[in-house]
Amino acid sequence: LSPQGNKLWGGRFVGDTDPIMEKFNASVAYDQRMWDADIRGSKAYVRALEKARLVSTDEMDQILHGMDQISEEWSKGAFVIKPGDEDIHTANERRLKELVGAPAGKLHTGRSRNDQVVTDMRLWLRDAISTLAGNALQLISTMVERAAAEIDVLVPGYTHMQRAQPIRWSHWILSHAVALSRDVERLQEIKKRVNVLALGRYAYSCTEFLFWASLCLTHLSKMAEDLMLYSTKEFSFITLSDAYSTGSSLMPQKKNADSLELIRSKAGRVFGRCAGFMMTLKGLPSTYNKDLQEDKEAMFDCYDTINAVLQVSTGVMSTLQINQSVMEAALSPDMLATDLAYYLVRKGMPFREAHGVSGKAVFMAESKNIPLNQLTLEDLTTLSPLFGGDVASVWDYRSSVEQYSAPGGTAKNSVTAQVEHLRVWLKKQAQ
Amino acid sequence: LSPQGNKLWGGRFVGDTDPIMEKFNASVAYDQRMWDADIRGSKAYVRALEKARLVSTDEMDQILHGMDQISEEWSKGAFVIKPGDEDIHTANERRLKELVGAPAGKLHTGRSRNDQVVTDMRLWLRDAISTLAGNALQLISTMVERAAAEIDVLVPGYTHMQRAQPIRWSHWILSHAVALSRDVERLQEIKKRVNVLALGRYAYSCTEFLFWASLCLTHLSKMAEDLMLYSTKEFSFITLSDAYSTGSSLMPQKKNADSLELIRSKAGRVFGRCAGFMMTLKGLPSTYNKDLQEDKEAMFDCYDTINAVLQVSTGVMSTLQINQSVMEAALSPDMLATDLAYYLVRKGMPFREAHGVSGKAVFMAESKNIPLNQLTLEDLTTLSPLFGGDVASVWDYRSSVEQYSAPGGTAKNSVTAQVEHLRVWLKKQAQ
Amino acid sequence: LSPQGNKLWGGRFVGDTDPIMEKFNASVAYDQRMWDADIRGSKAYVRALEKARLVSTDEMDQILHGMDQISEEWSKGAFVIKPGDEDIHTANERRLKELVGAPAGKLHTGRSRNDQVVTDMRLWLRDAISTLAGNALQLISTMVERAAAEIDVLVPGYTHMQRAQPIRWSHWILSHAVALSRDVERLQEIKKRVNVLALGRYAYSCTEFLFWASLCLTHLSKMAEDLMLYSTKEFSFITLSDAYSTGSSLMPQKKNADSLELIRSKAGRVFGRCAGFMMTLKGLPSTYNKDLQEDKEAMFDCYDTINAVLQVSTGVMSTLQINQSVMEAALSPDMLATDLAYYLVRKGMPFREAHGVSGKAVFMAESKNIPLNQLTLEDLTTLSPLFGGDVASVWDYRSSVEQYSAPGGTAKNSVTAQVEHLRVWLKKQAQ
Amino acid sequence: LSPQGNKLWGGRFVGDTDPIMEKFNASVAYDQRMWDADIRGSKAYVRALEKARLVSTDEMDQILHGMDQISEEWSKGAFVIKPGDEDIHTANERRLKELVGAPAGKLHTGRSRNDQVVTDMRLWLRDAISTLAGNALQLISTMVERAAAEIDVLVPGYTHMQRAQPIRWSHWILSHAVALSRDVERLQEIKKRVNVLALGRYAYSCTEFLFWASLCLTHLSKMAEDLMLYSTKEFSFITLSDAYSTGSSLMPQKKNADSLELIRSKAGRVFGRCAGFMMTLKGLPSTYNKDLQEDKEAMFDCYDTINAVLQVSTGVMSTLQINQSVMEAALSPDMLATDLAYYLVRKGMPFREAHGVSGKAVFMAESKNIPLNQLTLEDLTTLSPLFGGDVASVWDYRSSVEQYSAPGGTAKNSVTAQVEHLRVWLKKQAQ
Repeated sequence: LSPQGNKLWGGRFVGDTDPIMEKFNASVAYDQRMWDADIRGSKAYVRALEKARLVSTDEMDQILHGMDQISEEWSKGAFVIKPGDEDIHTANERRLKELVGAPAGKLHTGRSRNDQVVTDMRLWLRDAISTLAGNALQLISTMVERAAAEIDVLVPGYTHMQRAQPIRWSHWILSHAVALSRDVERLQEIKKRVNVLALGRYAYSCTEFLFWASLCLTHLSKMAEDLMLYSTKEFSFITLSDAYSTGSSLMPQKKNADSLELIRSKAGRVFGRCAGFMMTLKGLPSTYNKDLQEDKEAMFDCYDTINAVLQVSTGVMSTLQINQSVMEAALSPDMLATDLAYYLVRKGMPFREAHGVSGKAVFMAESKNIPLNQLTLEDLTTLSPLFGGDVASVWDYRSSVEQYSAPGGTAKNSVTAQVEHLRVWLKKQAQ
Repeated sequence: LSPQGNKLWGGRFVGDTDPIMEKFNASVAYDQRMWDADIRGSKAYVRALEKARLVSTDEMDQILHGMDQISEEWSKGAFVIKPGDEDIHTANERRLKELVGAPAGKLHTGRSRNDQVVTDMRLWLRDAISTLAGNALQLISTMVERAAAEIDVLVPGYTHMQRAQPIRWSHWILSHAVALSRDVERLQEIKKRVNVLALGRYAYSCTEFLFWASLCLTHLSKMAEDLMLYSTKEFSFITLSDAYSTGSSLMPQKKNADSLELIRSKAGRVFGRCAGFMMTLKGLPSTYNKDLQEDKEAMFDCYDTINAVLQVSTGVMSTLQINQSVMEAALSPDMLATDLAYYLVRKGMPFREAHGVSGKAVFMAESKNIPLNQLTLEDLTTLSPLFGGDVASVWDYRSSVEQYSAPGGTAKNSVTAQVEHLRVWLKKQAQ
Repeated sequence: LSPQGNKLWGGRFVGDTDPIMEKFNASVAYDQRMWDADIRGSKAYVRALEKARLVSTDEMDQILHGMDQISEEWSKGAFVIKPGDEDIHTANERRLKELVGAPAGKLHTGRSRNDQVVTDMRLWLRDAISTLAGNALQLISTMVERAAAEIDVLVPGYTHMQRAQPIRWSHWILSHAVALSRDVERLQEIKKRVNVLALGRYAYSCTEFLFWASLCLTHLSKMAEDLMLYSTKEFSFITLSDAYSTGSSLMPQKKNADSLELIRSKAGRVFGRCAGFMMTLKGLPSTYNKDLQEDKEAMFDCYDTINAVLQVSTGVMSTLQINQSVMEAALSPDMLATDLAYYLVRKGMPFREAHGVSGKAVFMAESKNIPLNQLTLEDLTTLSPLFGGDVASVWDYRSSVEQYSAPGGTAKNSVTAQVEHLRVWLKKQAQ
Repeated sequence: LSPQGNKLWGGRFVGDTDPIMEKFNASVAYDQRMWDADIRGSKAYVRALEKARLVSTDEMDQILHGMDQISEEWSKGAFVIKPGDEDIHTANERRLKELVGAPAGKLHTGRSRNDQVVTDMRLWLRDAISTLAGNALQLISTMVERAAAEIDVLVPGYTHMQRAQPIRWSHWILSHAVALSRDVERLQEIKKRVNVLALGRYAYSCTEFLFWASLCLTHLSKMAEDLMLYSTKEFSFITLSDAYSTGSSLMPQKKNADSLELIRSKAGRVFGRCAGFMMTLKGLPSTYNKDLQEDKEAMFDCYDTINAVLQVSTGVMSTLQINQSVMEAALSPDMLATDLAYYLVRKGMPFREAHGVSGKAVFMAESKNIPLNQLTLEDLTTLSPLFGGDVASVWDYRSSVEQYSAPGGTAKNSVTAQVEHLRVWLKKQAQ
């Protein structure tokens, strides 16, 4: 059909190029942040070409010098993107040609645009991972030192958002620090794979990174959720620094834990990026398809997001104030019902039966409308003859947490050991 | 704990404010595009305040005049965002105060920031939906007119990517046009709900819009996939305009259907936004939580994406060229095997049995390595005595498509009727 | 290559059929629940064939009778699925042939398996939607009547999980009831589209249903989250019925709100089904591809899940007990700081300024460590000369909620009006 | 409020228990498949209790014996699930009590249900991972041996679904085999983490497994997509075995690649499970919440799905037949345009310029409507004086693939080396 024929069915005018298509196709608006990786990659490539005698030493020197000039322009904010610079690679190549002329044309011998993109992404992602690991380590370190400093503070442990057993506040902190340390380890594994990634498979490294960011943010959303609960008026366990709170435009008395809500919200955002890119990948034929261009915005957005979240989390964790008296006042004798059962187990009763007796004690105390530890020995012996005067020793929260002295337990020694373990681990990571 | 105490566990220094937290919290970088909706909303609100005698007529006039000045500043690119302008609402309010002084303070009587955000989003989304509907209608119109112009072209219909039965090329076009017309109808339903959305429920309208965009792009990804197949060397049914193709930096002979790949890829991107926001919403407590701030970037990105996709699709559909001779050469007699079965049904054989006989004929032709229509009447009568000389009439592709004359069928009348139906529908939408 | 050749590269033995492939391909294990829809669909189809004279009246009667027999077998649990019955359609067709012989072969004249599947899904989904709408209406009705009965109970309203302003408990209930009523309206729209869905587009109706279920469950996850907060020891606003709670296998004193946690969790499950099916759809070529077989399990699982959630939610909402005295004791004078600002606005101060003065009053009370309403008039007049003796009237929670008398407000009249509005709406839906 | 009061707002009757809630809460319907892991876990636990002197040797023996009996019952299909057996753990515990009486009550000393669930899942998942790794290795092995056997077959390599450069068919096979080998390595990393997973963190191992399954299926969806293209009539590169194809109920001539479509579809299904569980996790408070119960169905479904997909893929890959003559006939001289450019590079022209000259040659051949290799030397020298008689050597597909002799290249040596590398890797994995 002739172009005239096309007019028959109308549609908007289309000449040689469609500006919307050009904008749709171009990535320079977001991939220009890879300028440094692109220059480093090209410098390494030209050195390889020289070794393979595909460019002369003189040509190499011209290209290297040109690249350094371009680098300086970017650093100073003086690089000018021109129409036709569809991506950072084209932009740098175009500028190189302006600066050094003919030799620029040799830089791409045996290297497809996709080879170049993969190299650039590898370099960029490697740096990005190092930065993230550093920020994660700072957060973990802050948490570990806080846990060490506040090891004597008790607080209710919760399951199902219901008070369960007394724990150390440091135990809560460390549970999240350990989860984050696992995330750092996973990140290092990805870094290893990034270092060796081959053309055609880099999309999967990027995908793994997106999923890593999701998983790490899901951890942080859990920590944020706990802290939000603890900062409600009703719990009042902690007070967030003003630097991480905001007021209300309507209600003068409000102080909102916006920082925590933002942290929680980002788990969704980042997983959305991961889900979107996975869906983009699904069912694509082998090798390169333009669909893969979606990788970069997803990668940058996830990086920026988790990078900010890690730093804000460090700020939150290093500045929040705990209200120790409120935390400890929230402990109640019924939280020792499991200890009461173990008391009976130590006297020889099978656990399931002891659990039942302790449950009856809880019910009895509720019926009498008194705390569990106010039941008399007489009361208790109606439930089991195994109860004796030594049952009084059960009603002590500090003794209770000291019982769990296995690794990962709530005893002071266990918590201290975990602090030490993490300090050693942190030192190793810093090397 | 005193601030000194905090130093014990380190963390980066935090003074009154944390710049990363401020940036994390601020939305003005992306929500400034709602400046016009914000101004329109405030102008309507001040008029309501005046009616309720909460501001005087003079105060109203000052505010309206100030708002018009701000609008002009934005239009001209002269509005200056200052530190502290955390969102577009704060920025406009701050500027209003600079321009008109005290009365500016009355504009927010009885209106929380969230009320204002909801109003602005409602106005913005309403306009956005109108634009998208317009672009979708242009695409549909292009497709309908193309279908009308090329109604006589036959092409294989495919199921499971295997040649199935002959259809009209226009039938293929219209199947996608009809799907898009349903999308436009769904979009109009969302617009109705946007118009009446209440505070606290706007997140769900935004969500519905994100899902709508996903569903519409999933349709377009299907259309793009078909066109990609048709534009492979192996199919060669269509040739994309150069304006919607790109070359290869490595391989001089390549011409890639980048526009189609980009369209396909966006279904993932946009669904990712929808998935991310749904995940952000999951399990949030009632009323406003800062997590909801994620809505705007998702909404803007989905809008921009589908807006570009609709326009590029119109460009692609209005400029691609069909290779009619290749399309028709791809029809083969075995695609009439169903017709052969119906021939027997018309002679009184139950369909299941006729299907079996026709299958045997296909097998016989394959064994003899001849096309199905080259089987002799003798061959056929060995399979069923019902075959007669009139079986020759089966082997005509145009007759075959003419058999399906029900609404939605491949007969010329059916296709023409659908064209007419869509033309009428388009006219109605344009009103 | 000959089969012998294949042996060269090994792999497990494959004869005529691969049992894993057969199982992979078969859907009868889950689609048999559509047996009734399949029978109803075939009965309607054979009647149409008879009208079109493609089967005789006698054949039709035989088929109808056979179908009734099959229906009875399914009802009684007597239907036997045989090897080769890959889906419910094949199973019913095979059985029909056993029962009525040759005429069974005519039932499928002009009807592809896909036509049949679409019809069956339409019938099934229509019934499913009716059931869900009924269960949703029962939940809404329970909530509305509870709101009517407990209209005089006050409770803190929260934003950002922080106490904001006093509201009626009924106001909280109705906010969720209204959200659910919108969900029912959306469901009715989908039902309309299901009724007219065409071959090739039913996947989108299924998709819309999956998204609907996600959106509705996201609402319910929000309600569940609120209720979980309210049922913590720290809030103690509500007590869940034992029927919707469970104990702990370890801790005798625990009572966990498992029902609420299950409701919350299902938002993820169902959205996962939606996300999965959207991803399956992405980039598929037109018409039928086997990938679409994923639709049924997703649809059944979402239906079963939301059906259970709606009924459990009704159970939870009809049996939970509120602790009115605790709810009202949680109200505190600082929640009236906005009212204090409005007091000043009524005296002529611009809102932004009044907001600032009220904020200073909150700060002054905090500094003096007294409740906001214990500031003396002298204290207040140091902040603004507009304060007078009538400021005392601000400190009344019931007056505070009565101020918001617009539709959707917290005033008794507003809440009552909403109750009435929903009662009328419910009646209309029941018709 | 009294129960009578509840009647005021109706809702369905709720007595002590709500059967829908019970069903909603119960997991035994799906978690019973962990019966063996549960028994093994309990046997290990009772041995630890005996060592810690919390049960006597005699009690331990009774429990071990009872457990063996239960194991036998499950193996024989004789175990009877009773009302109240809400999960596999409760079921086995209940049965143990029936069999051995009192000592059964001691088995759960110091072990919460969650501890037990984690242990069971660890054991189950470890076995599951071994099975999957085994099936993945079988698939890889099949592919590697096929690649070795068919190393001399050439086929067009595609990018953007357009013919790019000639490659070996084995090169295509190995690109997928290598991707799968990386998947196996990732799976082994997860297995390591599963082995050491702690209470409270197992949800993340499960999540990682779900994502692993998604990523692996995304690879397989890519391979399936390629094979679907290759099995279209238009490509005709391969013929699927009948064992992995199906016919059409309507069209007697159709042979559909259902197996490949099913493989492709499962990437969506499994990712949906992963997305759903991630969404369920988002924003949960620390420790156990009932929401986590969603993990098991997701884990089982992903396991079953990918397990079937791996086996079906092995079947497909070991039985498909290639149509070598068609593959090689699809090679065309324009696919050597890059080689033509390199010819000029070898003569000293910079690559970018050579790319341009080669592009002009392609255009010239198209204008003359002749294949690229039919341009005369005269034609070529009008484009560049560097062309000489030796240009004829460019037009050989086998020479072309032999040029790429770096690791991962298309030269016979490179492909053979990769085959050898994978054979060694496979042997290592099998140890």
